[in-house]
Amino acid sequence: MNAIIISVGDELMMGQTIDTNSAWLSTRLVALGCTPLYHKTVGDDLGGIVDAVLEAGDRADIVVITGGLGPTEDDMTRHALAKTINVPLDLHEPSLETIEKFFRSIGRVMPPTNRIQAMYPRGSDVLANYWGTAPGIHLVIGAAHLYAFPGVPREMRGMFERYIVPYLEQMSGRSIVTESITTFGAGESTVAEALGPLMERTRNPLVGTTVSGGEVTIRVRSDFVTREEAMQACEDVVLDIKKRMGDWVVGVGGSSLTETTVNMARSLGVLLTVAESCTGGLLAKLLTDIPGSSDVFLGGWVTYSNELKVNELGVSPDVLSKDGAVSQGVAMAMAEGALKRSGADYALALTGVAGPAGGTESKPVGTVWLAIASRQGSETRLESECYSFPGERGMIRLRAAKTAINRLRLALLARRTS
Amino acid sequence: MNAIIISVGDELMMGQTIDTNSAWLSTRLVALGCTPLYHKTVGDDLGGIVDAVLEAGDRADIVVITGGLGPTEDDMTRHALAKTINVPLDLHEPSLETIEKFFRSIGRVMPPTNRIQAMYPRGSDVLANYWGTAPGIHLVIGAAHLYAFPGVPREMRGMFERYIVPYLEQMSGRSIVTESITTFGAGESTVAEALGPLMERTRNPLVGTTVSGGEVTIRVRSDFVTREEAMQACEDVVLDIKKRMGDWVVGVGGSSLTETTVNMARSLGVLLTVAESCTGGLLAKLLTDIPGSSDVFLGGWVTYSNELKVNELGVSPDVLSKDGAVSQGVAMAMAEGALKRSGADYALALTGVAGPAGGTESKPVGTVWLAIASRQGSETRLESECYSFPGERGMIRLRAAKTAINRLRLALLARRTS
Repeated sequence: MNAIIISVGDELMMGQTIDTNSAWLSTRLVALGCTPLYHKTVGDDLGGIVDAVLEAGDRADIVVITGGLGPTEDDMTRHALAKTINVPLDLHEPSLETIEKFFRSIGRVMPPTNRIQAMYPRGSDVLANYWGTAPGIHLVIGAAHLYAFPGVPREMRGMFERYIVPYLEQMSGRSIVTESITTFGAGESTVAEALGPLMERTRNPLVGTTVSGGEVTIRVRSDFVTREEAMQACEDVVLDIKKRMGDWVVGVGGSSLTETTVNMARSLGVLLTVAESCTGGLLAKLLTDIPGSSDVFLGGWVTYSNELKVNELGVSPDVLSKDGAVSQGVAMAMAEGALKRSGADYALALTGVAGPAGGTESKPVGTVWLAIASRQGSETRLESECYSFPGERGMIRLRAAKTAINRLRLALLARRTS
Repeated sequence: MNAIIISVGDELMMGQTIDTNSAWLSTRLVALGCTPLYHKTVGDDLGGIVDAVLEAGDRADIVVITGGLGPTEDDMTRHALAKTINVPLDLHEPSLETIEKFFRSIGRVMPPTNRIQAMYPRGSDVLANYWGTAPGIHLVIGAAHLYAFPGVPREMRGMFERYIVPYLEQMSGRSIVTESITTFGAGESTVAEALGPLMERTRNPLVGTTVSGGEVTIRVRSDFVTREEAMQACEDVVLDIKKRMGDWVVGVGGSSLTETTVNMARSLGVLLTVAESCTGGLLAKLLTDIPGSSDVFLGGWVTYSNELKVNELGVSPDVLSKDGAVSQGVAMAMAEGALKRSGADYALALTGVAGPAGGTESKPVGTVWLAIASRQGSETRLESECYSFPGERGMIRLRAAKTAINRLRLALLARRTS
């Protein structure tokens, strides 16, 4: 099976909006064993859409077209589909009722322009949209099944899962189960080495990797006749992957490093604080991106200047002047000070050279000291490590903050199993 | 003039990477008066690239193809171009020397696989790449001028400006000058109202707007026969826009709100600090995203818990229990405490409900108190304001942090002109 993806919209064509739908659709199609042949983006232009649909209908088993189903005059997808198969647009009464009901539910009367969203090319199937107002359209063009969905990502995704996935499974006579395992701490090539034969392209389940923001995600695709077989094989390979990857495994099913770490802290009932220099608030920001992080995160200090390091966290001016702000002693003193002042159980401290300026021969851009302080009964335990991160300022800061979170995750893991 | 954009790469086709090059190219082409007809993304597949090039060569004046010029076996663009015009690949000695020299400069010997990057379809033009190793290719297919550039955004952008822009200007016999004005504080419709007739689609210079992260950017495109005329007309309309937009104007030529604010603080010699609750470090992170922000930013506090607000910033427990953490009194006390403890000239404080949980009838999700404390001689001046931001957690936090930075910008503006 293969597929062609068409995105419709002047905002895409003129470059004002970046097309993320096509990449999402491709990922899902590949996971379901359907090969994308190409993506095409066209503007809100009747002729352009008709051409793209005709071209795609000649070449693919499945055509997915997103966008252009809105209520305004420049939404041309349904007109283009009707023109392509040379039929008029008919009114779909149940859809009209649903749209009117939606507007009543938000205390408004349906504007007359929205009536067009209940129109569909005669002979095609109307696909109910449980995530928004515009129904989708399904029709057959040549040998291809064409699905038209709204461009709103949430609606498009919901409709893909509801209408295309069952069709693909039915057509292939097979069941496909997918899973993803997020890892942190090993680069993509190290992960590939650890996975070894599991990554051979002829295996089923098929195992692949993708990288984003320093986290390597391992994707599993299990393809069997029955759902039971597919699930069992997927489960087995996930277990094998977890064994091979050990502590690098952050979570299964899409959990990010930070989410997993915040959830672990919550389940252990421990409190967290941070003391940041080079990351300048990014570490705290990542932790507080997670809803409910206030259960475990007390807050912290961004001690960018040396004065704040001394006055707020009790870093010794002697250590600062002797070793410099980017040093093991300063990182440890920052962590210790933050732990004491906040009353938290764990404190993470970062001090480094994020660049572009400020690097020296002995401490080049990318040098970062991380310290972690924790309460062990009445004592404080201190650990520290020096890293050298590649890339530019933004990348160095992100890597440093995520490495600190990962270090905390490993400490919490050790605590949980001890 | 019109154009077709082709992106090549399995990583794009399979959805692992989102195509941002096409949107960038579209924006630039539109600004230069060249209409994009469609974008097409194909995989690293000889036949697919040849088909896409033939289709595009039939329809457009300009074809831009990005990606597939790397040194590995799956980089097929140059082979596909040679096949399309039915010529062999020749070696371009000067390019080979340049690539070998590049490797020597980083202390390595050129791997043999990189030799392919110096090959080009016989009869085509080799375009020197001053931003990386792979040269670009220019050739004529049918009536179209085709330009092949590497997919690395920085290299692609540099080569577009160097090779396509002068060609477009020469072909049109016109000079096009563009400028952008970043604004903050007014929504897109308010900006449109303030610009009034300037935004009419028949005017020259042409004025349009785009929105990103709460900042509205006004784009000007001035299209005349001589460069002098184009520049003069652009300057005139930029002046008019600045007059109409007043204090909403953050910067000209792509300066962001945060960059402008940090630069203003630096030129005024004032020092900054922050005290954050709901934004959890994001405000400090945005300020320290700017290289050199350590000149003006001392650091700050993320007082997520009430205890830290009291112990570190001196917020009164009475005010906290009477008014709650999200209140004018707490925001002002946070700002005042941060100012005093840090010795800064300006302190920004934020406390609010970022959601998804924590909202109440009187303080729904999105409620944020902002306070700004500043030294006026020996006295401290305090101002505060309450906002209600729409959207989800991430959006509310970003709006709150940027609103605080904008409030600081306006305070610095008043200081500079007083």
